[in-house]
Amino acid sequence: MHVLLNRLTAKPGQRALVVDNLLESGTLFDGNPACLMYLVAEASEDADDIWVIDVWTSEEEHAEALRDPVLQPYISRTTPLLEGMPEQTHVEPRGGKGPAT
Amino acid sequence: MHVLLNRLTAKPGQRALVVDNLLESGTLFDGNPACLMYLVAEASEDADDIWVIDVWTSEEEHAEALRDPVLQPYISRTTPLLEGMPEQTHVEPRGGKGPAT
Repeated sequence: MHVLLNRLTAKPGQRALVVDNLLESGTLFDGNPACLMYLVAEASEDADDIWVIDVWTSEEEHAEALRDPVLQPYISRTTPLLEGMPEQTHVEPRGGKGPAT
Repeated sequence: MHVLLNRLTAKPGQRALVVDNLLESGTLFDGNPACLMYLVAEASEDADDIWVIDVWTSEEEHAEALRDPVLQPYISRTTPLLEGMPEQTHVEPRGGKGPAT
């Protein structure tokens, strides 16, 4: 199991556009059984932060999905709308309830 | 939908015990249909951080679940094992794939 917590910070006023890009590009994962979760969410107490929670069957499957050339224009379009680089936290699921357990 | 990203920092050497407490107390949510996700995970690049991802049908259902007196001894036992208070990030899901969408 491969679980990543990604925090992206949009430039002021750009969050909705970044979220749209993330949702549109993420439709690529809809039919991919290796993708168990791809949640795009906006921080409630911050105007610019976006969180993406990725749960994949393996790191390799995730890496392979990200190599799809269809994603390139989305990445090129979205990167300039961000403050700096996304902050990624890799976590190891230990249990509980949901698609990673 | 109510989504919370919780970061807990264990005191040095206490992470496994905190995770055990979180998993054991979390079995309370197994039969609760309002709990869509309760993922307990350990940060891979940090020795002390624990992440708990909560996805609930509503904030009220989550608050009600946390009022169960069964949880009190776990909270009393776990709090002294933590550095400071858990850091909670409340997020609004916008779409994607998984139990929050």
